[in-house]
Amino acid sequence: MSVNKQIVLDSRPSGKVAPGNFRLVEAPIPTPGEGQIVVRQHYLSLDPYMRGRLNDVKSYAKPQEVGAVMGGGAVGEVIESRNPKFKAGDFVVGPGGWQLYALSDGAGFNTVDAKKIPIQAYVGVVGMPGVTAWYGLNKIIAPKPGEIVVVSAASGAVGGVVGQLARLAGAKAIGIAGGAEKCNYVHSELGFDACVDHKSPHFADELKAALPNGLDGLFENVGGEPFLQCLRQLNDFARIAICGLIASYEGAPTVLPDMRLFLVRRMKIEGFIVSDHLALWPQALGELAGLVASGRLRYRETVRQGLESAPQALVDLLHGGNFGKMLVKLV
Amino acid sequence: MSVNKQIVLDSRPSGKVAPGNFRLVEAPIPTPGEGQIVVRQHYLSLDPYMRGRLNDVKSYAKPQEVGAVMGGGAVGEVIESRNPKFKAGDFVVGPGGWQLYALSDGAGFNTVDAKKIPIQAYVGVVGMPGVTAWYGLNKIIAPKPGEIVVVSAASGAVGGVVGQLARLAGAKAIGIAGGAEKCNYVHSELGFDACVDHKSPHFADELKAALPNGLDGLFENVGGEPFLQCLRQLNDFARIAICGLIASYEGAPTVLPDMRLFLVRRMKIEGFIVSDHLALWPQALGELAGLVASGRLRYRETVRQGLESAPQALVDLLHGGNFGKMLVKLV
Repeated sequence: MSVNKQIVLDSRPSGKVAPGNFRLVEAPIPTPGEGQIVVRQHYLSLDPYMRGRLNDVKSYAKPQEVGAVMGGGAVGEVIESRNPKFKAGDFVVGPGGWQLYALSDGAGFNTVDAKKIPIQAYVGVVGMPGVTAWYGLNKIIAPKPGEIVVVSAASGAVGGVVGQLARLAGAKAIGIAGGAEKCNYVHSELGFDACVDHKSPHFADELKAALPNGLDGLFENVGGEPFLQCLRQLNDFARIAICGLIASYEGAPTVLPDMRLFLVRRMKIEGFIVSDHLALWPQALGELAGLVASGRLRYRETVRQGLESAPQALVDLLHGGNFGKMLVKLV
Repeated sequence: MSVNKQIVLDSRPSGKVAPGNFRLVEAPIPTPGEGQIVVRQHYLSLDPYMRGRLNDVKSYAKPQEVGAVMGGGAVGEVIESRNPKFKAGDFVVGPGGWQLYALSDGAGFNTVDAKKIPIQAYVGVVGMPGVTAWYGLNKIIAPKPGEIVVVSAASGAVGGVVGQLARLAGAKAIGIAGGAEKCNYVHSELGFDACVDHKSPHFADELKAALPNGLDGLFENVGGEPFLQCLRQLNDFARIAICGLIASYEGAPTVLPDMRLFLVRRMKIEGFIVSDHLALWPQALGELAGLVASGRLRYRETVRQGLESAPQALVDLLHGGNFGKMLVKLV
């Protein structure tokens, strides 16, 4: 393979993103300058936050530039290095973007141990999504033994970790996911105490039935109507970590209908972005890697084949078409 | 005076509370049984939380019973005691309710030092409102030196303390109050850096102008449109303490229009009720008493005369007709 295929953002979506917003281009395989590395990428990480970057609005992440290679995390192998921190053959995780070969000065890239854990886990359960779960659960919800933690998008890369960590902390974990298959996986394979299907016409009643003692912590990834139903089940002193509001990224905003709930429940809602807390990553990653290596933390992946599949994979991710971590395999 | 005058709740208000919802009754001055005290009350404390207790809905406070003496804090003097914790002549603060003489087993009553500080301060700046300010500012907003704290109802019993404590902590304090006279008091007498009049037709612009560097902490007592305008000025990592939503008690609920703000700003909103945190009261009261005694914490009172004035005083309090702590003087 002598060319570097890349996918660039061709136009900003208005409303729902579509594969037509992206365009495939070709470029020479890069040659590293002084201090640079070239990474042959193995897996692209697809994540919900990417949708926000496609809009040209002020947010926590800088907007993706139109005409530039689509940004995003990836794992791969260093094939050439003129940077003393890396050598050819190193496996690395970093912001390589949607392309077969990434050229970088090494900023944001870290070497990973490819022996104990499959490398793609470093963009999943032992990567950004895992640390996201770890931070929101431990630093915002901070569940006490016996408390009840609800997690939306429970079969996703973040949600699946949240519930398992909650159970390891002695709390109960109740998932919310879309469809019987995902709910069964969350309950049977990930070991959540229960999982409620938000696509059920009786979702509100089923959620209530799954929470006879209310909920003390809510790890929110989705927003929309299921979130509003969760608000009806809050116990006093409930803590809500807002990790994502995927239902609002392309749809109507999620509205909090009455602020008095803060007083009635003396509750806390806190939004967070895991990249604000880099100092905690080593601790979190160490704990997560240990749990994965010992088999106490389980996960699943949806793997699409080939760079060209990335745009549709992102669209599918935003509409629940994944089962666990969404990846694009390049080699 | 040989009778005990009392005000009872005669009917629950639907919408706005009116003096007609209350009724004056007379009863004999009580005689203490074993373990009981009789308190001749000097000042009733009127507080916004009372409005919520008039509704028969699930909330943090048990509803006020129709036909019973209206509950509330007061300060007074023990005139008879058959309780070893109190003796005649003690000044006490406690839940005496709207009556000239209170009979109690002493639960919730505490003796106060009437020498250094005027006794009515024990239901104000060195009482529940003061601790409310102390808790929300120190435990939820936790301002760092140089940060900007906005306080609504800034001339009120709670708000005035919040801004002064914020400044003592090295932060800037910006008040919001209704009308030029209150704003002038907040700025000139209480020493806030600025105060914005929410009754001004140009409030939104004036608030923005007063916050050229945004806001890091918001101590919210009111809700409604001024609150929504504050949300537009939030800095990243802002903390919002929800102490009260007086504008919503008799009006439309305050809605949070888009939960994405939690992610864009990585903000925290936390509601609290000071009675949940009794363990911290001694520390808070000690600090507040010291600041009042040394003249570093200033306050003002609106004093109505006579038990019969209490219902109208409550109505006025709920519509901003007070200037600082609202009290009813009984003796």
